[in-house]
Amino acid sequence: MTDRVYNFSAGPACLPESVLKQAQKDLWNIDNTGIGILEHSHRDACFDRVTEETERACREVGNIPDSHSIFWMQGGATSQCYMVPANFLPEGRTADYFQTGKWANDSIAEVPLYGDCHICGSSKDSGYNFIPKRKQVSHSKNPVYVQYTSNNTIMGTEFHDEPETPGDSFLVADMSSNIYSRPMDFSKFGLVYAGAQKNLGPSGVTLLIARKDLIKEPVRPLPKMMQYGLHAAKNGRFNTPPTFGVYLMGEVFKWIIAEGGLDAMAEMNKEKAAIIYDFIDSQDFFQPHAAKEDRSYMNLTFKCPSPELDKLFVEQAEAQGLTTIKGHKSVGGMRASIYNAFPRSGCTALVAFMKDFAHAHASATTA
Amino acid sequence: MTDRVYNFSAGPACLPESVLKQAQKDLWNIDNTGIGILEHSHRDACFDRVTEETERACREVGNIPDSHSIFWMQGGATSQCYMVPANFLPEGRTADYFQTGKWANDSIAEVPLYGDCHICGSSKDSGYNFIPKRKQVSHSKNPVYVQYTSNNTIMGTEFHDEPETPGDSFLVADMSSNIYSRPMDFSKFGLVYAGAQKNLGPSGVTLLIARKDLIKEPVRPLPKMMQYGLHAAKNGRFNTPPTFGVYLMGEVFKWIIAEGGLDAMAEMNKEKAAIIYDFIDSQDFFQPHAAKEDRSYMNLTFKCPSPELDKLFVEQAEAQGLTTIKGHKSVGGMRASIYNAFPRSGCTALVAFMKDFAHAHASATTA
Repeated sequence: MTDRVYNFSAGPACLPESVLKQAQKDLWNIDNTGIGILEHSHRDACFDRVTEETERACREVGNIPDSHSIFWMQGGATSQCYMVPANFLPEGRTADYFQTGKWANDSIAEVPLYGDCHICGSSKDSGYNFIPKRKQVSHSKNPVYVQYTSNNTIMGTEFHDEPETPGDSFLVADMSSNIYSRPMDFSKFGLVYAGAQKNLGPSGVTLLIARKDLIKEPVRPLPKMMQYGLHAAKNGRFNTPPTFGVYLMGEVFKWIIAEGGLDAMAEMNKEKAAIIYDFIDSQDFFQPHAAKEDRSYMNLTFKCPSPELDKLFVEQAEAQGLTTIKGHKSVGGMRASIYNAFPRSGCTALVAFMKDFAHAHASATTA
Repeated sequence: MTDRVYNFSAGPACLPESVLKQAQKDLWNIDNTGIGILEHSHRDACFDRVTEETERACREVGNIPDSHSIFWMQGGATSQCYMVPANFLPEGRTADYFQTGKWANDSIAEVPLYGDCHICGSSKDSGYNFIPKRKQVSHSKNPVYVQYTSNNTIMGTEFHDEPETPGDSFLVADMSSNIYSRPMDFSKFGLVYAGAQKNLGPSGVTLLIARKDLIKEPVRPLPKMMQYGLHAAKNGRFNTPPTFGVYLMGEVFKWIIAEGGLDAMAEMNKEKAAIIYDFIDSQDFFQPHAAKEDRSYMNLTFKCPSPELDKLFVEQAEAQGLTTIKGHKSVGGMRASIYNAFPRSGCTALVAFMKDFAHAHASATTA
């Protein structure tokens, strides 16, 4: 690691070091064109290559079926909060939303501009520390779609199975923080969107995987830039795309393939998370935030016995090269984000530090 | 130049080489944090520094008054085609638009979703080869704002003065392809927007400079991500910004300052353009597209005596390291884009090649 630290940031987050090394070269001169990746026209042969390779690698990694388009947009997952109902929800119809944290609430807030929002399951009353299960879910009569946040970055909870979809409704998922962390059956989804800045690349590009039959026409007149079908038809080049982001996603997809694909990612992510969760379960100094069966493999949330100790933990961890581990203000405590590119050695280093810290402050548990 | 070529791309376009060198370093480890710029949380101290420095340098370069906010969004200038009328144009009111090329038309096309569009000046009938002057302009009775494209990348025409604004209307400018190429009085504008990928940085980030009193509230209910005021209030961090783009814009602004600011940019750009235009005016092999008084200093459009020779010119130029000089398909011929970062030596190299080419094919002029 030498001049690099363990970066537990929730996003933008650490990237594979081999990808960064390649990007350093390509910033100056990519494909021996004499032009850096940032400087290539989005219509030239080099960027044709980048676009095609990124899409192909994305399809290979996720085993995305031909029934689905792959493309990318700008504006982050936050822009999808309004683009989804704008494209899919006619006036007078209802969409069902799972309320499992901040990102879900951001989505829910935009629905009334377009149609009706029904909250079909919620963990709000318990601080969003669990995922509503089948018997806790109550759908509206005839929803157009069911939307959920597959991993809740802030809370550290994760859907380990996809929710059901009543009638002919389709599934919409904000997968920003766990896409491509494990194999998933993407044929089940109407629309998947993911801000790239966790598992896929830099901020500023959002990956979309959409059932082709659903995005032909929006349900209402919309500006061109808001229409999924136009972006899909142009393979993410309806207007000038965020070229560097598209390039870097492609490099990350190729890295995933080289590492063994999503099976290998899943195995490594499970192992990494277990290093930390197993330790947490073995002691009573640190308390986890999320319900055990709904814990995230990507964002691990836990607390010391007091906010003062949380603060000290974050400071001392930082000094030891375990950075950006402070929890979101709405939850407090700590959050260790360990996406695909986060190294296993960082998890063992964190546990070693947690042990030392608990030992040094053990008396606090009796307070 | 060694392993780099002259890149005449219209955007994404060439960047200052010193900025690329710095970015290569910062991709691995910025500010000695042990974390690369792509991997920093947009809420951490390093990115606080980047955000503040980018805004401060942007304000210094443009001499932006305190009456105006500086912020950035995603989605390119193309997204502004709908965001502008959505935020500013109430139903039943009219906005005036100058029709000077493709980007103007893209903007004009989105207005009817929100209000009425009046074309106050147009060069459509002559292939958009000039800028409508005062006596060619006819405003609507009481427009909310007047919108224009300050430089037409495809046509190679440029407004050398700002249009007038009748009554209490304000000026909205798409400055994507000539912002910060010369000093401008930004206090005159209600809103300026510019996709960064020409004079400011990479694609994927759009700079906005807006009069604070105009963006307090949109004229209709809008999704949060569409509201200028919310983005301005959070200094471009309403949601996760395109962090690398913001960083790189900051580096480009600092480069402009180090080079002597906009006075120096203007002088160099005038000199660079004159090298090519003076040659074009001295011969009759190559024909310019734009009317002489409306020629752009950024995008220089010209043609050979035949489309076959245009094709040959592009091929032979490419082979000599004068790349991406093919004109837009709607105009044909050639387009030399010579933004701030494009070196003077590239202009002399182009003229040398043009002379040789004209000499070799001079008989064609009599055809």
